[in-house]
Amino acid sequence: MFMHNKNLMYTVRVSEPDPRLASLMLEQFGGPQGELAAALRYFTQGLADEDPGRKDMLIDIATEELSHLEIIGSIVAMLTKGVKGKLAEGAEEAAELYGDIAKGNGSHTLAVLYGGGPALTNSAGQLWNAGYIDSIGEPTADLRSNIAAESRAKIIYERLINLTPDPGVKDALTFLMTREVAHQKMFEKALYSIENNFPPGKLPGNPEYTDKYYNMSQGAGDARGPWNQGEQWEFVEVKSNQGPVNGGDGNPSVKLAAAEMAAINQTAARTKSRTDVNPLTGADLGAGPGAGKMTKAAK
Amino acid sequence: MFMHNKNLMYTVRVSEPDPRLASLMLEQFGGPQGELAAALRYFTQGLADEDPGRKDMLIDIATEELSHLEIIGSIVAMLTKGVKGKLAEGAEEAAELYGDIAKGNGSHTLAVLYGGGPALTNSAGQLWNAGYIDSIGEPTADLRSNIAAESRAKIIYERLINLTPDPGVKDALTFLMTREVAHQKMFEKALYSIENNFPPGKLPGNPEYTDKYYNMSQGAGDARGPWNQGEQWEFVEVKSNQGPVNGGDGNPSVKLAAAEMAAINQTAARTKSRTDVNPLTGADLGAGPGAGKMTKAAK
Amino acid sequence: MFMHNKNLMYTVRVSEPDPRLASLMLEQFGGPQGELAAALRYFTQGLADEDPGRKDMLIDIATEELSHLEIIGSIVAMLTKGVKGKLAEGAEEAAELYGDIAKGNGSHTLAVLYGGGPALTNSAGQLWNAGYIDSIGEPTADLRSNIAAESRAKIIYERLINLTPDPGVKDALTFLMTREVAHQKMFEKALYSIENNFPPGKLPGNPEYTDKYYNMSQGAGDARGPWNQGEQWEFVEVKSNQGPVNGGDGNPSVKLAAAEMAAINQTAARTKSRTDVNPLTGADLGAGPGAGKMTKAAK
Amino acid sequence: MFMHNKNLMYTVRVSEPDPRLASLMLEQFGGPQGELAAALRYFTQGLADEDPGRKDMLIDIATEELSHLEIIGSIVAMLTKGVKGKLAEGAEEAAELYGDIAKGNGSHTLAVLYGGGPALTNSAGQLWNAGYIDSIGEPTADLRSNIAAESRAKIIYERLINLTPDPGVKDALTFLMTREVAHQKMFEKALYSIENNFPPGKLPGNPEYTDKYYNMSQGAGDARGPWNQGEQWEFVEVKSNQGPVNGGDGNPSVKLAAAEMAAINQTAARTKSRTDVNPLTGADLGAGPGAGKMTKAAK
Amino acid sequence: MFMHNKNLMYTVRVSEPDPRLASLMLEQFGGPQGELAAALRYFTQGLADEDPGRKDMLIDIATEELSHLEIIGSIVAMLTKGVKGKLAEGAEEAAELYGDIAKGNGSHTLAVLYGGGPALTNSAGQLWNAGYIDSIGEPTADLRSNIAAESRAKIIYERLINLTPDPGVKDALTFLMTREVAHQKMFEKALYSIENNFPPGKLPGNPEYTDKYYNMSQGAGDARGPWNQGEQWEFVEVKSNQGPVNGGDGNPSVKLAAAEMAAINQTAARTKSRTDVNPLTGADLGAGPGAGKMTKAAK
Amino acid sequence: MFMHNKNLMYTVRVSEPDPRLASLMLEQFGGPQGELAAALRYFTQGLADEDPGRKDMLIDIATEELSHLEIIGSIVAMLTKGVKGKLAEGAEEAAELYGDIAKGNGSHTLAVLYGGGPALTNSAGQLWNAGYIDSIGEPTADLRSNIAAESRAKIIYERLINLTPDPGVKDALTFLMTREVAHQKMFEKALYSIENNFPPGKLPGNPEYTDKYYNMSQGAGDARGPWNQGEQWEFVEVKSNQGPVNGGDGNPSVKLAAAEMAAINQTAARTKSRTDVNPLTGADLGAGPGAGKMTKAAK
Repeated sequence: MFMHNKNLMYTVRVSEPDPRLASLMLEQFGGPQGELAAALRYFTQGLADEDPGRKDMLIDIATEELSHLEIIGSIVAMLTKGVKGKLAEGAEEAAELYGDIAKGNGSHTLAVLYGGGPALTNSAGQLWNAGYIDSIGEPTADLRSNIAAESRAKIIYERLINLTPDPGVKDALTFLMTREVAHQKMFEKALYSIENNFPPGKLPGNPEYTDKYYNMSQGAGDARGPWNQGEQWEFVEVKSNQGPVNGGDGNPSVKLAAAEMAAINQTAARTKSRTDVNPLTGADLGAGPGAGKMTKAAK
Repeated sequence: MFMHNKNLMYTVRVSEPDPRLASLMLEQFGGPQGELAAALRYFTQGLADEDPGRKDMLIDIATEELSHLEIIGSIVAMLTKGVKGKLAEGAEEAAELYGDIAKGNGSHTLAVLYGGGPALTNSAGQLWNAGYIDSIGEPTADLRSNIAAESRAKIIYERLINLTPDPGVKDALTFLMTREVAHQKMFEKALYSIENNFPPGKLPGNPEYTDKYYNMSQGAGDARGPWNQGEQWEFVEVKSNQGPVNGGDGNPSVKLAAAEMAAINQTAARTKSRTDVNPLTGADLGAGPGAGKMTKAAK
Repeated sequence: MFMHNKNLMYTVRVSEPDPRLASLMLEQFGGPQGELAAALRYFTQGLADEDPGRKDMLIDIATEELSHLEIIGSIVAMLTKGVKGKLAEGAEEAAELYGDIAKGNGSHTLAVLYGGGPALTNSAGQLWNAGYIDSIGEPTADLRSNIAAESRAKIIYERLINLTPDPGVKDALTFLMTREVAHQKMFEKALYSIENNFPPGKLPGNPEYTDKYYNMSQGAGDARGPWNQGEQWEFVEVKSNQGPVNGGDGNPSVKLAAAEMAAINQTAARTKSRTDVNPLTGADLGAGPGAGKMTKAAK
Repeated sequence: MFMHNKNLMYTVRVSEPDPRLASLMLEQFGGPQGELAAALRYFTQGLADEDPGRKDMLIDIATEELSHLEIIGSIVAMLTKGVKGKLAEGAEEAAELYGDIAKGNGSHTLAVLYGGGPALTNSAGQLWNAGYIDSIGEPTADLRSNIAAESRAKIIYERLINLTPDPGVKDALTFLMTREVAHQKMFEKALYSIENNFPPGKLPGNPEYTDKYYNMSQGAGDARGPWNQGEQWEFVEVKSNQGPVNGGDGNPSVKLAAAEMAAINQTAARTKSRTDVNPLTGADLGAGPGAGKMTKAAK
Repeated sequence: MFMHNKNLMYTVRVSEPDPRLASLMLEQFGGPQGELAAALRYFTQGLADEDPGRKDMLIDIATEELSHLEIIGSIVAMLTKGVKGKLAEGAEEAAELYGDIAKGNGSHTLAVLYGGGPALTNSAGQLWNAGYIDSIGEPTADLRSNIAAESRAKIIYERLINLTPDPGVKDALTFLMTREVAHQKMFEKALYSIENNFPPGKLPGNPEYTDKYYNMSQGAGDARGPWNQGEQWEFVEVKSNQGPVNGGDGNPSVKLAAAEMAAINQTAARTKSRTDVNPLTGADLGAGPGAGKMTKAAK
Repeated sequence: MFMHNKNLMYTVRVSEPDPRLASLMLEQFGGPQGELAAALRYFTQGLADEDPGRKDMLIDIATEELSHLEIIGSIVAMLTKGVKGKLAEGAEEAAELYGDIAKGNGSHTLAVLYGGGPALTNSAGQLWNAGYIDSIGEPTADLRSNIAAESRAKIIYERLINLTPDPGVKDALTFLMTREVAHQKMFEKALYSIENNFPPGKLPGNPEYTDKYYNMSQGAGDARGPWNQGEQWEFVEVKSNQGPVNGGDGNPSVKLAAAEMAAINQTAARTKSRTDVNPLTGADLGAGPGAGKMTKAAK
């Protein structure tokens, strides 16, 4: 059961309204690396996890992320508070009001205002969608996803800090950024306390293909590094006329029943593109001066 | 520049058509952990990476993933080939044809057929969207995202293998699964060959908040583990009436200009919900037998 | 700040696993009328509301909806628990396992499993998106939206109850349904405690058009009722050749600068479809036996 | 059957082209509260409604909303007409043309132009999607949804009017806003002419939970009002260590078959995070100066 | 202005309810090739077209497509009418009701019912979105898009006819299919009555690249046909080590200012992946038995 | 199998960074008419095509489009290179940095930067989705779709060229535009080398409805042209009170079983809107001064 304490987890002091900055902040409210995505990621994992310690950690962090969502949403609400009243009350001439909202910028600012309070969009107005959540219910994969998600969120906060002149906002963003670092460390500990966590899951791979590095991109710029040299790797130069790595004719095959074969052959015949003709085409019709291709006026 | 060799990277031998199995396979064609997402993830990162070795690796793997996309798409095309001709040619009675397509199942099968060849959807018919791609252009985050993505893809292949009775499909899926393991190893090598890759990015966090574990979910089931105990952690029992971690009054604040203040106050007054009344509501109107609330017939 | 109590708000007792039923339940986990949508709807409104009493109510209810999200998500986790382990461990033959998962049904079941634990999709696998949230930051509109949302959620729970044989699940669904009724009543009270809440917002309409009912759909079936008869209404029979309700020529107009006019005229001339010809078309080319339209074999 | 009369329902007179204003107007063309959403909302409800009077009203209003869609679309077409020809004809130098289009603003303007005529997006370029439509086929819910939708649309028009300096556009917007008020009144009459419309649907709730207000958000700011006090309510102070409202142990439960239990236990064992160790992690590897963790150059 | 005539454009006689068939029909109600997409495609083009004859035709056809949308929606409403009442009234035991709805199938059927009347989704439950509309405001492109859209819609109707045993539904589908053919012919006439409609638009291409066919996919299966042989084509065998077609070094370049260069170099240095080391990685940590990598129990 | 050559297909020389221009270019990277959509369109068609010559062509062109995707992505990477380093390194004061990024513009620029390298969005930040792909697996439809897609892409490139002052970018865009023209010609040849390609597919239409033009939009502006006059057409003036084109009563019908009929009648009765009353509504409650509708203060 969730509960709520009316105190923010972190007291936020915004210097003055700025709808442009508000739009930027939406990136961490309704953006792919934002706090909503984080909270839902850990919450949905926690609901189904069979390990009691990990489940506890996932819900702890999900709950903290909800508290962060409240912080970033409150920052947005403060930054738009100045213009929100003016718009609702028609307190200025239209042209002046438009200028106040846009502050020389564009749609994302307006999205904030048209969405009322903080909107569940990224900084460009793109609606949040659950495709941002990549939980799949296998801890050795999900914990790696969480580690990655915290890394990305840390970087987005870092960029927002670099772009924010308001010291109060910058201070709150630094808190939020720092917590992403702490969460990453937690997920790392949880992952590596699973023995034999690599490869993830249960099935071993086919040893014939585990250690091969296929050089698929060729030409000046080909490089070697620890990812394709050393004892763990066999470096394979793929040739332009190479056959399949498992041999065979390189074509997909399937065995069809007679009726299936008959039907598909009928389709093939009906839609065959002849290679022995040079047909007049719509483009040919449209390209010329049109002489002769248009008959007299229709009636 | 991309080029194409008409051989599949891996020769695929499907036993017989099965639209149900085809639908399952779509998970790795147009699903979030599928080959299209993988290819585009590495390709977009590679385009902007400043490190020549890593850029080379990213494009090598992106190209291999495109070749995998072709393999999984070819499997889908083989599995639907039997019913495709029948549908196009109307080769059976409607009821029988419907049964052939659905095989006792549902919409995802039909999605395959309505989309023609392999459709860029997941196994439930959800359209692929670029929200599945989480590249942000910082290698210490993107490489972790790639490691996680390969982990997830490995698990999805493992599940598909567990669900596939066709030995030819199972063989190809095992190849694809194995390569995800190899790719994960490559990205790990690339990440750890960056010195000081943790925390990702450049800004340090606020040391006051880096090592704290906040126990936000409380009650029977609270657990300790390496993610919240030991020298790296300070365990903080959050209390239900706790104030903000940085002190202050726990409320967000912003300094408004006088005109802004006037406008927002006007809004607040206009939309105030009075707490000193008990208004009759629409629900009250709708709940009763309606006596007295309906006037005579309107004209 | 959010906190979490490890007890569910309502103890859930599921009789036995049933992935088909799990899929249905997803409608209220990640569907448009589900608990996530509800929680985020009230939470985003609460963040920006200027009225302290209403803000308190919005956050109270948002928090309760999060607790409901946990309940419905736990139901899904219980219903899929039986097959989840089998799939992860490959504990059965592929064909048998497929049957266990699908239980004679289709994609939505599999979506549950491929998503791991409870997925943020509706019962048909459609990803949740923030377009489901319709908050706009004006209480006289938002409270009406909330009233409507609770009505819809109540009905969806009612349908799920009608479709659920499991008594433990039915009991929990009844609790959740009942709370939607209670929430609707709360929002009604809050709306009607705003004086002059209709029309919503501040601007009055143009009195000339407020009371007109335009009969736009005509023929047998035309009906009268309190929505278009009585003292509040003027019933206007729209005629098939009627001009605009405000007079004028019925065409949109704009005054262009000379350069703008010149450019648009150039476009119009360049792309003019001549009405005085009967051109040979691509369809004409494609319709016939093709004789004469195909030249000899190209080389 | 729909028919069309070449007159607009309301003659629109735009003063001069303004792509920035055009972008704003898109909010009511392809935005969530716009005319397309309104028309489709009532049309889909009307198709399935069993009540002849209400069905007639729904189609009347749906048809009027289509006519409004034409009005707002024509406004957009007029506002972009100036720059459209210049862009198509390359009538200016690139830099000047870019300035003409953007008018100091951003992407939403360009979206208008790249989409050709009026695009089915909101003012920030977000594609319209059917998730905006919340019809569920139960009149006591759908009519409330319609009332709410009209309220929201009224407010968006009010904001657009406040932001529009062009008197001709302002006049047309006022007409459109006024009609939303009239439509809301119609839907209210239709709802309240259903006897016993609350609670919506058929099933009664569990009386034990109908009248309780759970105080889930606590601390300074807790408030009382008609939504949680008075004879209709029991106010419940939720405690931080409270058990479930229905008693029980607060945990979800399900009865698994033996094979199911064996499989899930195997999963749990395989993925257990040990709590008795402090593992070296990837973050640990990445955090230090790296001394000793990198072996000599690989070959 | 749109108007509505209560007669359907085509009288529909459905034999008996069948929710499975209803789901299939949704493909042309809310699917990508369906009637809504068609109507909006032509309507948005018509609003902005400068040619009076073509504009008239576009609105004529858009209006007819709306009338088709009503037909297909009415078919869906009839096919679901049987089960809709049962579900709303709880008229059967849950298990029996579930069977009635699903008819041995899956989610798409349920989507119909959960969405109430006809839902704006395709047959797999995917929400309609405006990305299905490809109007760009240039007639020589848009008319080709319309020709293609009518072709696709014709085929989908053909497949639905092949799958439909109900003679009344089949009859209505045949009408709808036939009209797509008629519409395609209309758009063809309109396109080819524009002189010089190829290439579309105004700018000529670079003649050096207009007639070249690049053979990018090589190996057994390479074929020649009128699309790459004959006088209109120069066939270019792309080589695996080929340089750019315009010469140059094959790398993208840009001239940076000094400060820009300094910053990007700093980024490159900070995130460099060293190629001269073989770092221990997270995968290495996770792969082994873990001996030595886990310290004693943390406290 | 795909392979990669490190040379771009076309050497790109960008004059100087310009994030605004980068945003525009995204239209052809992740926009609906962009290179990703093109590549995937032809690739998915090619996988399932039964005609060897056409399949070869489809894969040739798909591969070339991937090479174009690399070109346009590289242009974006060059145009954002200047500001990317500054943002990553915090190399300027926040306000100055914000100005550098936005260059007086808005969200789309920022989207570029937040997405890191080239993002898979259009120029307004809308995520790419597979709804842009309209392949359906019937060559006589798909080739027309491809012709249309190339036409649209050609026009978008033309507009971008008109808006681009940078000569190096303009040169590369001209190459890309030219290739769209060449591809259109190829698809035209392939289409017209299919005999009897119109109407697409196999089923003939109902001859009664093939040649009729329904004049659905009436009034001043009605026009005639080759699309509705001449020997191929019968022009039908639709009347405002016209019955269905196939006769009948104009209502949809279905035969219900007795239990189905009983249930739906019960629903109709339960939700009947009475037409003989004038109920007091929520709007009535909200409209007045409220006197008398609010009882004394609740407790």
